Amino acid sequence: MFTFDLLATDGQARAGVFHTPHGDLETPVFAPVGTQATVKAVTPDQLRALGATLVLANTYHLYLRPGDGLIAELGGLHEFMQWPQPLLTDSGGFQVFSLAKIREIDADGVTFRSHLDGSVHRFTPEKSVAIQENLGADIIMAFDECPSPYDRAYNEAALARTHRWAERSLRAHTRRDQALFGIVQGGVFPDLRERSAEFIASLGFPGHAIGGLSVGETKAEMYAMLEVVNAVLPEDKPRYLMGVGTPQDLIEGVRRGVDIFDCVLPTRLARHHAAMLQDGGRLNLRRQEFARDPRPIDAGCTCYTCQHFSRAYLRHLIVAKEMLAATLLSIHNLHTLVHLAQAMRQAIREGRFEAWAAQVLAAAGQGGLP
Amino acid sequence: MFTFDLLATDGQARAGVFHTPHGDLETPVFAPVGTQATVKAVTPDQLRALGATLVLANTYHLYLRPGDGLIAELGGLHEFMQWPQPLLTDSGGFQVFSLAKIREIDADGVTFRSHLDGSVHRFTPEKSVAIQENLGADIIMAFDECPSPYDRAYNEAALARTHRWAERSLRAHTRRDQALFGIVQGGVFPDLRERSAEFIASLGFPGHAIGGLSVGETKAEMYAMLEVVNAVLPEDKPRYLMGVGTPQDLIEGVRRGVDIFDCVLPTRLARHHAAMLQDGGRLNLRRQEFARDPRPIDAGCTCYTCQHFSRAYLRHLIVAKEMLAATLLSIHNLHTLVHLAQAMRQAIREGRFEAWAAQVLAAAGQGGLP
Repeated sequence: MFTFDLLATDGQARAGVFHTPHGDLETPVFAPVGTQATVKAVTPDQLRALGATLVLANTYHLYLRPGDGLIAELGGLHEFMQWPQPLLTDSGGFQVFSLAKIREIDADGVTFRSHLDGSVHRFTPEKSVAIQENLGADIIMAFDECPSPYDRAYNEAALARTHRWAERSLRAHTRRDQALFGIVQGGVFPDLRERSAEFIASLGFPGHAIGGLSVGETKAEMYAMLEVVNAVLPEDKPRYLMGVGTPQDLIEGVRRGVDIFDCVLPTRLARHHAAMLQDGGRLNLRRQEFARDPRPIDAGCTCYTCQHFSRAYLRHLIVAKEMLAATLLSIHNLHTLVHLAQAMRQAIREGRFEAWAAQVLAAAGQGGLP
Repeated sequence: MFTFDLLATDGQARAGVFHTPHGDLETPVFAPVGTQATVKAVTPDQLRALGATLVLANTYHLYLRPGDGLIAELGGLHEFMQWPQPLLTDSGGFQVFSLAKIREIDADGVTFRSHLDGSVHRFTPEKSVAIQENLGADIIMAFDECPSPYDRAYNEAALARTHRWAERSLRAHTRRDQALFGIVQGGVFPDLRERSAEFIASLGFPGHAIGGLSVGETKAEMYAMLEVVNAVLPEDKPRYLMGVGTPQDLIEGVRRGVDIFDCVLPTRLARHHAAMLQDGGRLNLRRQEFARDPRPIDAGCTCYTCQHFSRAYLRHLIVAKEMLAATLLSIHNLHTLVHLAQAMRQAIREGRFEAWAAQVLAAAGQGGLP
């Protein structure tokens, strides 16, 4: 269980298989985000049909509502949300630092107020792992701190905490049917990132996550950090770039040795009427120019939405404020990223990834790939 | 085309097949309502999977937005909303009288203000038929007036208009691939209903609708009107009870010779967290008592929602304000009424409808069937 087979590489890009209790995960893979135990506006049947294999859920949200104890009592998260394939939960750290009101951060953990009702709670590495064991995802995360990326002194202090918390998360973890991933932090500082990757790798996690990116730094800084970190992380374990993102970032990430991605972007854009195109561009389908457009969103796309519905119909749903708009756009946007990851896997296995990536990224120069 | 084969009767209840250009419609049938060219929160694939065969769309709404001309240009309503099975449109009359601000009703038609932007429009029988020809549904409706049911003098005057408008709708109708149904009105007055049924039946429509019921009168009055009208309407043509409704009304309607029903109730209840049960009861799934309930909504139900999800999960989605709640409850509620109609058809074909109906309605005495 939780072995990672590298099937092919092309430069730093890797095609692999990560074995989990809920099935083999083919990488590179993009994971839709189901924050509250549902990928917004999409059923599990629709997720499976669009090609999703791994789904992420948020520990912070599910701890607050409906409660991890309740989910455990009902058979765990797979059963609760009816996603029988691999699941991943984050540690709750990111949401505590971005969504909740922090009361206190100390060496032991974080005290915060719920964004729902202001009630006071405390997360420690042990607590985060216990919640994630109740939820029962296949892949779970060590508790970490995700600081703003540019403050050197703060990042050094936070990194020390994150490393202690990684050790404590590992000690607290008891379920053999879950893979606990360690998280590399370090802001935009190459030496901190390198130190973090070395330390986290030394702990013997079955997989590694790269956190604290796509949080305000530049693209160049993000890509540079990936290069530093992945030069250190062992090749025989999967690498997960947290909270990323755009088609360009998926390609640039795979190019630098990343295997797993997740992001709310495709479903969030969908709820704001934006369709993601395979070439990286976007269409705002609310625009008047689509009112009589009989074409699908993206000519080459094989998703349910593009196989059936015109831009004109989708615009009508948006203007008429119909819920079906969010569903159909979410299906399309998720399909676009899930299939981008699958296309990269195929290109890597066929030894043509670098050429493929260069071509796609060059095309992006003409207005695509944000 | 548009012949109606009566396959079996049991008392006044009928099992038949209505032949349309988009397939044979087995009756009794319940039609989900897709007001704005979408059954709210449900995809056409999900509609087909739950057993829907006939879908209704609203002429008034689609005329205003996105416009019937635009829909015609894009290939008609079947193509636009991707519903390849039979479609039905109403005449727009009911919405003009219930939703719009009336400016003037005269012998020729109705002038009204749009509920969307206050713009002034005029519907006449000829205009309503022209819009419905642009939309292209299989079954379309004569333009009628649906008055408040208790004012005798007003109902007499409105009925005279409705009868003239029925004649004019028939003359205006040119598409051979659409069945134009005449509508019987007459409020709660048996003699007006009888007169209307006789007059409308004399015009030779391929099917008949019963309008102006479920608009404020008592159940007893509605059932009495059905008996009066269906004693007059010819047996070899389908009968459509407009805007009805509840499980009990479907059973009482079929018992009195009705073949086709439509209603917004199942999808509207779904958006307000209420699940319809097969025995006619309802569950408000937002209630605390369902927080840890592992059971499906309805033990015997075969819908996607009941085959997969617990009451606890559905309550979580509702409390967390997730869109998926409306989708899963809509699927369940629509499935309940669609399958109730199918169960009645089966019982009629097996000559056990009256016994079945008596049993179900008796069970309703213990708190079911609203």
